Amino acid sequence: MKNPVIGIIGGMGPQAGLDLAAKVIAQTRAVTDQDHLPMALLSYGHLIGDRSTYVFGESSENPGIAIASVARELSSLGVQVAGIPCNSAHAPQIFDELTRLSKGIRILHLIQETVRHIQETLPDMTRIGCLSTLSVHRLGLYRSALEDAGYTPVMPTDEVAEQVVHRAIFDPGFGIKAQSAPVTDQARAMVLSAVAHCRSRGAESVILGCTELPLAVSHAKDIPLIDPARALARALIRETSPQKLVPL
Amino acid sequence: MKNPVIGIIGGMGPQAGLDLAAKVIAQTRAVTDQDHLPMALLSYGHLIGDRSTYVFGESSENPGIAIASVARELSSLGVQVAGIPCNSAHAPQIFDELTRLSKGIRILHLIQETVRHIQETLPDMTRIGCLSTLSVHRLGLYRSALEDAGYTPVMPTDEVAEQVVHRAIFDPGFGIKAQSAPVTDQARAMVLSAVAHCRSRGAESVILGCTELPLAVSHAKDIPLIDPARALARALIRETSPQKLVPL
Repeated sequence: MKNPVIGIIGGMGPQAGLDLAAKVIAQTRAVTDQDHLPMALLSYGHLIGDRSTYVFGESSENPGIAIASVARELSSLGVQVAGIPCNSAHAPQIFDELTRLSKGIRILHLIQETVRHIQETLPDMTRIGCLSTLSVHRLGLYRSALEDAGYTPVMPTDEVAEQVVHRAIFDPGFGIKAQSAPVTDQARAMVLSAVAHCRSRGAESVILGCTELPLAVSHAKDIPLIDPARALARALIRETSPQKLVPL
Repeated sequence: MKNPVIGIIGGMGPQAGLDLAAKVIAQTRAVTDQDHLPMALLSYGHLIGDRSTYVFGESSENPGIAIASVARELSSLGVQVAGIPCNSAHAPQIFDELTRLSKGIRILHLIQETVRHIQETLPDMTRIGCLSTLSVHRLGLYRSALEDAGYTPVMPTDEVAEQVVHRAIFDPGFGIKAQSAPVTDQARAMVLSAVAHCRSRGAESVILGCTELPLAVSHAKDIPLIDPARALARALIRETSPQKLVPL
């Protein structure tokens, strides 16, 4: 039986598309090149306007329209299920528009898949922390998804979100976007201190809700970390070729 | 002006496709997501038979036929220039067939682009070493391309090619294919010893002629190393959006 092609709408930024593709490969049961699942990645970031700018009213063109045009290109290749490795593209005003315009292809929801992953892998936890960029933090994307699923979200204070998490990602000197191979000790220490901050506020696990954060830390002392890209990668396999999914 | 889409025929293996895409991103002058070049990666390894098996007469179906079918899918997306991050797919009996069947899209030649890269970046050198898998070594793909360009190829002895380079890549315990994140100390030491072996035979620089090798070493003492995937990434940018190429 032919395995369906997994679609990835990349380019937001381009590294995040590759990161999701790498996680699909890592979560696939495969020994040979031929065992791996077919995957189509369209990294068309040039078409897609900044998501935060739109959501905060600083630009008027909904990036969901361009994302849907990429989804339709994937659909023309026969892709039926795709993912978007960009948190802010999942703001309702963007995601609703892009799914409305993407007939014939199903886009899995990064944030809802992350919550589902927590339900499946950490069934006894109720208080979930989340680190993210300032725009995802302010939009409350993870907070509302966690609440809808019955969790108590444990967000960092606005000060930590701004001075610690956002700076660890965006600082032009030591931030992860500026230096990711390898990540600087300072950025890593800041991310770990923000994890500890959520823990001190009662979080039992912490979502790394920005595609850059798992580059800095994969594990923390005494508390599980959740990588949304890994959750989405597993969901893409589950929805296309479940027999190929590496057991947890 | 719209930048043409860069095509990547991946899946041979799947990581090599991501590695080439990452090198295109790294070699692109870009600050924002929107600055990056459009890229389409089709990782359809399930369609494409083993290249070495065919070249050595152990299977009868030319993998060039399936590779060309992927090239035509890229062409249907509007892609005009593409690359294949797999050395053995460039054996003449495969590459000639796939280019014959890939009308409307130009496939850059990984090995010829590597030689061109040496001509441009190391103009005074004449003796070039090359490490590769045993099949690429036996096919003499780099050896003949170097000779055609007027270089003196400096290959490892068959014993080193088999017992050191091939094992560093394929050993099921410590090899790079089995353990790449991170690469084992043993594999790294073996690759470096093979580099030193080529140097002791007179090589002035050494090509890492297998997509796994740059995962183990990026620099060596006293001798420049050449990464074909990086050369191909730069060639893909040069042939589509030369103004976007990061200076050497």
